[in-house]
Amino acid sequence: MRVDGRFCRTIVPRADGAAIEIIDQTRLPHHFEIVPLTRVEEAAQAITTMQVRGAPLIGVTAAYGVALAMRADPSDTNLDAASAKLAATRPTAVNLRWALDEMRRHLAGVAASRRAEVAMARANEIAEEDVALCAAIGDHGLALVRDIAARKPGRPVNILTHCNAGWLATVDWGTATAPIFKAHDSGLAVHVWVEETRPRNQGALTAWELGQHGVPHTFIVDNAGGHLMQHGEVDLVIVGTDRTTASGDVCNKIGTYLKALSARDNDVPFYVAAPSPSIDFTLSDGIAEVPIEHRSPREVTHVTGRNGDGSTTSVAVTPVGSEALNPAFDVTPARLVTGLITERGVIEATRAALAAAFPERVAGAAAA
Amino acid sequence: MRVDGRFCRTIVPRADGAAIEIIDQTRLPHHFEIVPLTRVEEAAQAITTMQVRGAPLIGVTAAYGVALAMRADPSDTNLDAASAKLAATRPTAVNLRWALDEMRRHLAGVAASRRAEVAMARANEIAEEDVALCAAIGDHGLALVRDIAARKPGRPVNILTHCNAGWLATVDWGTATAPIFKAHDSGLAVHVWVEETRPRNQGALTAWELGQHGVPHTFIVDNAGGHLMQHGEVDLVIVGTDRTTASGDVCNKIGTYLKALSARDNDVPFYVAAPSPSIDFTLSDGIAEVPIEHRSPREVTHVTGRNGDGSTTSVAVTPVGSEALNPAFDVTPARLVTGLITERGVIEATRAALAAAFPERVAGAAAA
Repeated sequence: MRVDGRFCRTIVPRADGAAIEIIDQTRLPHHFEIVPLTRVEEAAQAITTMQVRGAPLIGVTAAYGVALAMRADPSDTNLDAASAKLAATRPTAVNLRWALDEMRRHLAGVAASRRAEVAMARANEIAEEDVALCAAIGDHGLALVRDIAARKPGRPVNILTHCNAGWLATVDWGTATAPIFKAHDSGLAVHVWVEETRPRNQGALTAWELGQHGVPHTFIVDNAGGHLMQHGEVDLVIVGTDRTTASGDVCNKIGTYLKALSARDNDVPFYVAAPSPSIDFTLSDGIAEVPIEHRSPREVTHVTGRNGDGSTTSVAVTPVGSEALNPAFDVTPARLVTGLITERGVIEATRAALAAAFPERVAGAAAA
Repeated sequence: MRVDGRFCRTIVPRADGAAIEIIDQTRLPHHFEIVPLTRVEEAAQAITTMQVRGAPLIGVTAAYGVALAMRADPSDTNLDAASAKLAATRPTAVNLRWALDEMRRHLAGVAASRRAEVAMARANEIAEEDVALCAAIGDHGLALVRDIAARKPGRPVNILTHCNAGWLATVDWGTATAPIFKAHDSGLAVHVWVEETRPRNQGALTAWELGQHGVPHTFIVDNAGGHLMQHGEVDLVIVGTDRTTASGDVCNKIGTYLKALSARDNDVPFYVAAPSPSIDFTLSDGIAEVPIEHRSPREVTHVTGRNGDGSTTSVAVTPVGSEALNPAFDVTPARLVTGLITERGVIEATRAALAAAFPERVAGAAAA
């Protein structure tokens, strides 16, 4: 999508394959900075420190991480080591495991001398597949926005989103934002309520994306979403997902569940943009089965922001001596989800609908 | 309650009546500082800038503000001007209007020469009445905590609270915190989940209070409350209220409604500590009728915190150019409230129960 008027992606290999360029997202929304990754350790580090974040981009970064590892040492031992290193970075993201499994499967029968090249080619394909997935989600979601716009002519469609399931979380388009960008680009009037999304304030990334692309939006605290729904100020909620179960339970950034509850209480449609790699057909009950990552309490006790001079500072918001807990995700039960916007269309968040839309995945999960 | 081991109140008149001492709550939780108010303009300013905050303390501060005004000029004209000035500070707080009406009623027939003295005496009484109200709420809420403790021996009772309805929001004890302090002081094992409460992070004040008084607690982001309830980590929610309607709808800090929804979804009891001055018997439908204050967007776009050297800084968390909206309160419908903890006992959040508990208030509202 656009940054400073130019089109941009979140991750791009250099022509010689010696480095992968990423946007350092820990510097956003205050500074836009491209950094190169040249070794698998740097790729793992970029995932751990959330220089790259968002389930799809984590998966693509891991694939490129394997490619960097194969360039350094194409042995089976190193393939195992690189996979293990990358797999350990973020326990909740299913795309990460999917991408690593895919790279290992793809490289299994390949001679060491060709592995670097084959790995880079497959990583590039995975990146392009992600762009195509997001674009398809955008087209299906666009139809939902169009329907609402047709029912309220002369007013913008108010869409609420939580966290950043934007293009920064993918390679391009984003998941939850793809319908928004497609609607805006097609001339529909949309306005986005962007939730701050504590503790990491990823809403600021969404606001940055929308601002750079010219989409009207308003930043709100996470607490405000319910109130706006009570007063008819939200036509539609679209969020992303880090992991969706076979029964349609949605694991996403902490706080998503609260918005699903208020959407239900106010008859606001609640959609989840769910690219199929984020669906885990081996899981059923999201609340009981999805492991929830607990991140550093410092993300809760401290907030990073921009000073008047443009530099950034991290300040403590809690009193000295107070402990904090930082569960990073929650699970929204399928019963609260109006629909899943997948690359194969908008489907019900039910086991039957998911199985019908992705029969090959169900078969794969059963075989596993 | 205790600060640095000594007992402390939020507002105390100096012996000579020339000044009212308050805690500058904008400096908390990082710095504990007492400041004097000597003129009604300073009292109004203290309310506007939230040096004092919380519905009960705002009411008491307004009463003392009238007393300061009467000391300067006891004329009817100045009584009108002082009331108008104080009434304009915070549109949502019903205690503010109640305290001003009470002071005007009380001073109406008093000769100018005695007004300063009578006003100060009545303001002191209003402060003591608030302490008694909070203590009574604490006793009634303590019974609820005791019941839960009896059903889960050997484990602490986990109580979640939002915003600061602590002693800092009153004169002493607090409203939502009074049962917590009483339970802790009586030897019951309690642990408090303290929600950050963006945008003004008043949860940090609650954490400070609890820490100073020695009550075990953990700080969490507002987004985390629902997840903890899903996993059985919350036994009880107690929040405060800025305004409760005759039918039991509860207007409180933005985000309260979301916690009420998740409490209901997880069968967690959701109680509101509601001193009767915060109940507005002239209102019925909270969502339709309670005016919601919109505060400065800067509270959303900026966060104030402590630097490593102990100084405080305000940093921007949003990208340059993104607008923000800041509704300060929301309304929790009575149907989501398990009970109201009032000074006259724990009652149902229904018109009938409220009318039965406060018949004189219903009669007063009908006559108004």
